[in-house]
Amino acid sequence: MYLTQALHRAVQQDGRRALTIFEDRVRSAAECMDRVGRLAAGLRSIGVGQGDRVALLGANSDRYHESLLAVPWADAVVVPINHRWTPAEVGFALHDCAASVLIVDESHLPAVAQIREHTDLPNVVVMSNGDVPAGTSSFEQLIAAHPPMADSCRGAGELFGIFYTGGTTGQAKGVMLTHANVIASALGSLATGQFVTPGGRLLHAAPMFHLADLATWAATLIAGGTHVIVPGFTPAAVLTAIEKHRVSDVLLVPTMIQLLVDYPDAGRFAVASLERLIYGGSPMPAALLARARKAFPQSSFVQAYGMTELAPVATLLLPADHEVPELVSSAGRAAPHSQVQIVDPRGDEAPRGIVGEIAVRGDHVMTGYWQRPEQTAAALRDGWMHTGDAGFMDEHGYVFVVDRIKDMIISGDENVYSAEVENVLALHPAVAACAVIGLPDKQWGERVHAVIVPAREAQPTVDDLRAFCRQQLAGYKIPRSVEFVSALPNSSAGKVLKRQLREERQTR
Amino acid sequence: MYLTQALHRAVQQDGRRALTIFEDRVRSAAECMDRVGRLAAGLRSIGVGQGDRVALLGANSDRYHESLLAVPWADAVVVPINHRWTPAEVGFALHDCAASVLIVDESHLPAVAQIREHTDLPNVVVMSNGDVPAGTSSFEQLIAAHPPMADSCRGAGELFGIFYTGGTTGQAKGVMLTHANVIASALGSLATGQFVTPGGRLLHAAPMFHLADLATWAATLIAGGTHVIVPGFTPAAVLTAIEKHRVSDVLLVPTMIQLLVDYPDAGRFAVASLERLIYGGSPMPAALLARARKAFPQSSFVQAYGMTELAPVATLLLPADHEVPELVSSAGRAAPHSQVQIVDPRGDEAPRGIVGEIAVRGDHVMTGYWQRPEQTAAALRDGWMHTGDAGFMDEHGYVFVVDRIKDMIISGDENVYSAEVENVLALHPAVAACAVIGLPDKQWGERVHAVIVPAREAQPTVDDLRAFCRQQLAGYKIPRSVEFVSALPNSSAGKVLKRQLREERQTR
Repeated sequence: MYLTQALHRAVQQDGRRALTIFEDRVRSAAECMDRVGRLAAGLRSIGVGQGDRVALLGANSDRYHESLLAVPWADAVVVPINHRWTPAEVGFALHDCAASVLIVDESHLPAVAQIREHTDLPNVVVMSNGDVPAGTSSFEQLIAAHPPMADSCRGAGELFGIFYTGGTTGQAKGVMLTHANVIASALGSLATGQFVTPGGRLLHAAPMFHLADLATWAATLIAGGTHVIVPGFTPAAVLTAIEKHRVSDVLLVPTMIQLLVDYPDAGRFAVASLERLIYGGSPMPAALLARARKAFPQSSFVQAYGMTELAPVATLLLPADHEVPELVSSAGRAAPHSQVQIVDPRGDEAPRGIVGEIAVRGDHVMTGYWQRPEQTAAALRDGWMHTGDAGFMDEHGYVFVVDRIKDMIISGDENVYSAEVENVLALHPAVAACAVIGLPDKQWGERVHAVIVPAREAQPTVDDLRAFCRQQLAGYKIPRSVEFVSALPNSSAGKVLKRQLREERQTR
Repeated sequence: MYLTQALHRAVQQDGRRALTIFEDRVRSAAECMDRVGRLAAGLRSIGVGQGDRVALLGANSDRYHESLLAVPWADAVVVPINHRWTPAEVGFALHDCAASVLIVDESHLPAVAQIREHTDLPNVVVMSNGDVPAGTSSFEQLIAAHPPMADSCRGAGELFGIFYTGGTTGQAKGVMLTHANVIASALGSLATGQFVTPGGRLLHAAPMFHLADLATWAATLIAGGTHVIVPGFTPAAVLTAIEKHRVSDVLLVPTMIQLLVDYPDAGRFAVASLERLIYGGSPMPAALLARARKAFPQSSFVQAYGMTELAPVATLLLPADHEVPELVSSAGRAAPHSQVQIVDPRGDEAPRGIVGEIAVRGDHVMTGYWQRPEQTAAALRDGWMHTGDAGFMDEHGYVFVVDRIKDMIISGDENVYSAEVENVLALHPAVAACAVIGLPDKQWGERVHAVIVPAREAQPTVDDLRAFCRQQLAGYKIPRSVEFVSALPNSSAGKVLKRQLREERQTR
């Protein structure tokens, strides 16, 4: 199977059906296929060859969607780049995979000169409605100037994309995902009958370069739905799009859901069309989930847990699971396409209830990190992807993610899972957000350190918070030091950048 | 992915859940996995090696289900055999694939001596509750005597089974299907959200050796449901099982549906649990479909069209399609995993509405016919399976199957699709069933010949029927000869054996 196959199927079944809706621009399936075939020919004309890497840098748009299809149509490999990265970071990724073309939107065009300081980039294609600078190609001109080429039908075990990841845990690595990887995750998720709706309208509000959103993109394409696209997340953009386009499905990360439920005007929008809210990308506090369910009372909730290396879905917490209070803190159970185990450091399966590393096997597991054989060998052992996440599995196969293995604090020979301490601190009324990290300590090896964002108008004290923790945590888990900040650094997927927090505090 | 993966997942999520219900015997997922691991070890002990062929001959049972899992668990290949075949036909298939073991139930045990006249068969394993004859192995003894072996995890592109087909159209050929083939069809069908229910209870009433039923077996396994199994189809057995076990899904072929709706006591059974009735395997008359929908008013109807070579699903007619009167005679549209085209004799795509051969491509297409390179090359061209079915596609991608290409009659240089004539004859109140075939004719090359089963107590005449046809068909399509019989020869999948009808009449 190949990802553009779904586009052929859409045209075969109804070429006039709206395939993308971006702002006021509606493109039918037939129009999209025509543009994709032309764009692919245009990419060929500027030298893109079989297996070449074509990077994408831009906010969400229908052109971004077309690029995701035109690149494989031309037998090449997409490299969707995090558009919040610095030019140096983007340049590193482009240099690492030797991208021959960068497709960029107007808002990121000014960064290209700086990006080029880090990489030898033969071609730049600009997504815009108007003229483009000298020395670049126009996306629309490439489409206008070339008749559609035949689909190369690139698929199966061939590389679909290289997805740079690692913002939170070290130097970026390129995750190699084949068509088969992405399709396995999409089909397996759809096979539950509880993922995106065939014939439905899915809203892309999370960044399309990220695998969380790309998973719903692939599933919507394969199931046969419409992509409603907003440039990026804002509460107003999401709520307006849901109401205006009768959106049926949306993928959101917890920080987005937080902003939505806090949005004062949220109640003014008609959101009853939303059949399903899929969330994932980072842990979801139970209190936030409860508020979200109240804000979208007609919607089913589905949690997807996974990672880029898993293309990306490993486990799903389905709507019925959300009715069981003990399960709402779980990441769900192995999806039909996925094998999930908790393993001890020797790689043996851990007993139920015992924390170990979450390991995953299946057709969705990446083929490796681009030109990183050592890191690939460390992550993939006997076909099992070692996620770096610590967790346990209950009797019925529900996985509870406890922490990143790397975020585990070893203090006086005791293991402290930072998430466990964070979950307690988050219950304190004076705490709006928090992160718990390990900092070097002469006596204990590492000491438990809490970084706290106080709630509005609250003034918690260190003693208050330690006393609060003491009611629920063993002594060695209680933060030995506490600091107060106005905000925590977040990745674009809504994850707290703990590495950054640690580094800043170690070098002070 | 591999088919036994679904068994591991079932045990991980709830080992105590009922996986099979056969008569009064309920086996949990954990029990099934234990028995499968033991049976696999037992098969190894009698010499089954990697890639060896293990044939299955018997009525539906939980042991049949266990065999379908134990053989790949032992790294071998299943060969499910049509149990309505003669010993000579069974012997031909076993000899053709050099099966090293035959797993047989008690009712087919008497045929083994005759089967052995045609093939060198080292081992026979007998599925029974009691003792087995000297010189054979007991299925239950193999399980009792061996501790479970580790799963070989045979899967992906490795052969799952060889399925002998061709009863209606010539000498049997072994269709080679990999795990990936069967899984692609199952996942793609499930991805519509309209196939068998995750967590549901699927009834196996159609023969489990046949791909139609095997498709729902694989889908139920992957989705995570329970298999309710009856030895074979009778109206009473099916209705009793639906009521007693609150069956949610069933696959039936049209002849079975006919017997069900004609069953005088049908109304006495509680069938409201039946969420979904999947039908396929042969064409479904519109009148019968209407009666079936009346008999199961709470059920959704799904038509699956495909063939053994497609593992087996190519198109699906979904519940919503059944609400559109013009579509109920269609076989539906390409399933998410499947590419479907109508091609002319040169292999080019035919315009919509024009009859050609139905061709199908995708991960579900067989790797070929066992040791039949010429027949494989004739059927598979550029990855497209040429189905031998004639049909056309409408504007919205709906496929209408017109006939078998081989059943097309060429009379005076005109093409006559026998199905078109049959559809007219079937509307005559005095006709219970009919088949139209071509017979050699000196003047016309072939002549259109109708074989009619009169309705109960009706006495149609040849002139009546020809006059009736003349109202709706061009002159060259009207049967030149008509005969009356008490019954038509049917295959076990409910297809009229036209080859047999032709041969009997040509040699008279």
